[in-house]
Amino acid sequence: MSAATLAAEEGRPVALILAGGRGTRFWPLSRSARPKQLLALDREESLLRCTVERLAPLVAAEDVWVCTTEPLVESVVRDLPEVAPEQILAEPEGRNTAPAIAWAIRSMPPETRRRPVIVLPADHRIGDEAAFRQALESATHHAATEDRVLTLGVRPRWAETGYGYLQVATSPDSVSVARVLRFTEKPDRPTAERFLASGDYLWNAGIFVFRGNTLLRLVAEHIPELAAGLEEIAAAPDRLGELYPRLPRVSIDYGVMEQLEEISTVPLDCGWSDLGSWQALLDLLAADAGDDVGRGDVVRHDTRGNLLWAESGTIAAVGVENLVIVRTEDAVLVVPRERSQEVRKVVDLLAERGREDLL
Amino acid sequence: MSAATLAAEEGRPVALILAGGRGTRFWPLSRSARPKQLLALDREESLLRCTVERLAPLVAAEDVWVCTTEPLVESVVRDLPEVAPEQILAEPEGRNTAPAIAWAIRSMPPETRRRPVIVLPADHRIGDEAAFRQALESATHHAATEDRVLTLGVRPRWAETGYGYLQVATSPDSVSVARVLRFTEKPDRPTAERFLASGDYLWNAGIFVFRGNTLLRLVAEHIPELAAGLEEIAAAPDRLGELYPRLPRVSIDYGVMEQLEEISTVPLDCGWSDLGSWQALLDLLAADAGDDVGRGDVVRHDTRGNLLWAESGTIAAVGVENLVIVRTEDAVLVVPRERSQEVRKVVDLLAERGREDLL
Repeated sequence: MSAATLAAEEGRPVALILAGGRGTRFWPLSRSARPKQLLALDREESLLRCTVERLAPLVAAEDVWVCTTEPLVESVVRDLPEVAPEQILAEPEGRNTAPAIAWAIRSMPPETRRRPVIVLPADHRIGDEAAFRQALESATHHAATEDRVLTLGVRPRWAETGYGYLQVATSPDSVSVARVLRFTEKPDRPTAERFLASGDYLWNAGIFVFRGNTLLRLVAEHIPELAAGLEEIAAAPDRLGELYPRLPRVSIDYGVMEQLEEISTVPLDCGWSDLGSWQALLDLLAADAGDDVGRGDVVRHDTRGNLLWAESGTIAAVGVENLVIVRTEDAVLVVPRERSQEVRKVVDLLAERGREDLL
Repeated sequence: MSAATLAAEEGRPVALILAGGRGTRFWPLSRSARPKQLLALDREESLLRCTVERLAPLVAAEDVWVCTTEPLVESVVRDLPEVAPEQILAEPEGRNTAPAIAWAIRSMPPETRRRPVIVLPADHRIGDEAAFRQALESATHHAATEDRVLTLGVRPRWAETGYGYLQVATSPDSVSVARVLRFTEKPDRPTAERFLASGDYLWNAGIFVFRGNTLLRLVAEHIPELAAGLEEIAAAPDRLGELYPRLPRVSIDYGVMEQLEEISTVPLDCGWSDLGSWQALLDLLAADAGDDVGRGDVVRHDTRGNLLWAESGTIAAVGVENLVIVRTEDAVLVVPRERSQEVRKVVDLLAERGREDLL
């Protein structure tokens, strides 16, 4: 292999898809055995499959790695037949994103770790897929040629208080790469409004690009006990079930990204949504404000602005507005759309009552 | 048998329970094969069973007759094991109340027809059962001794526009028998309010008492084609399926009661309700306004004034108010409580779509 071929090979990106989420926010459709990433919400296929298919022109299936949890691994393997099962890694338990990412990269062959790794969640929705891949291609190029650590920053469309924000050095435009000055987690409403107005803030989409080895070096520097734990696991892979749960629980944002002097962002304008709630899904699917969105067997009379999702059986709605009504074989949820985040309360109550059958 | 014994025997009432109703107003709980009278709504037992048990101190099971329709007869027999199956009559098809009542009475043995017959719907709710029986006893006495035709009139508690009213000759008190001057079907709101204020109007509860032979004589006088049809059937009982559907469709109110010169009423104050809608049931079951009423497996967070009825599976409600939510194995209904009568629209839509599976 010539040096030039090797360089080209080392510039080709690998994808690491984080598919370990619990996804209680889409209860009763999402369950511990079938979390959000395994659901088909905006399309016919699961969010996980859509994530892989969306990457396909940029990342071949042979370069896709998935990190999930043990209870989900069979479903993930079934959902992604084109991905080699040995590249679908199962955490013995969730320890937040830094261990998941670092362990997955440490598990890749050394030649793979030299390549740029695109780390991305399995459960997001992207409207303009070409724009999304273009941004990833740009980030991959900078990661490969300049060994930068990059994040994708989504141009904010409203003063969202549920997301993290990236403050960037200059008013970003869609083709440039900007330097990240600061991370801010979930701001309050006035702060979010200031961020939106300033033009210097982007939403943190949780999508990162770096060379695999670079990330491992940064982990060794900023979370040394994680790096040590990973070496222990590498030396004794049979003891994964015992060692993994001892890794420190820390997010990649807090543990690594926020500690760096230098991090770049590629601004992104691609109809991104983290689909964080039934309301977000309804907003996305409704052609116009006030339209009902129906899935499955639905009967309506004088209704507007509702999400009526019948996975099983029939939903009959009369005279109701702006509700989320979701029916599964064993449960039904009814909540005003603007309060759909509070489905977590139901999940908490069910857990308190030991209703594992519904979780 | 002495004349005195015979007279006592002839004074003992017979009950004729009309149990042919379709009961679409409690969809999705009520179905064509399981209409309202076969549902347990306010108690643990079906409304039909409650009707029989409520009468028991006054009317023995051997004196109970039931008129239902062919598709329901097996369920009714199962629900009322104490009633002789030959006293559970099945109309080949519903032809309104006058044919049902007259045919059932014509089917009784001649000695039974001489006795007072209490005709009453199978699907009403009575709060004060002793007061109810006392009123029936009084009506029975007048029917037996004076051969009067009587109706039970419920003291109105609000200006209901969905009921029929009886105007009576004098301000009634609970022990007297008053003469009915006029029947008024479902008045408009101002009229209903005037009726309520006047004190001279009672709700028509659809409960009548008369000697069986008296009713047959009145039918012969006022609906002669019905009387002729019944004689045809009596002469050729094997041809019931062919002859019954030819009987005139007419209600007992219009066909007989409203035609009479003289009809009496026994005023009744017994917590009567015809349970005409989910809202009526919710009003009845809620201890206080604003309370939720729950049945089955229900999880709630910050809810008020809802009826949450889970016959199958779990209902999870968050942040909703004054809704009726009813879940069965195959469907769920969501409707504001004050619009719960509009469930008929759903039933109509399902019928239009040929969804017999849900009707």
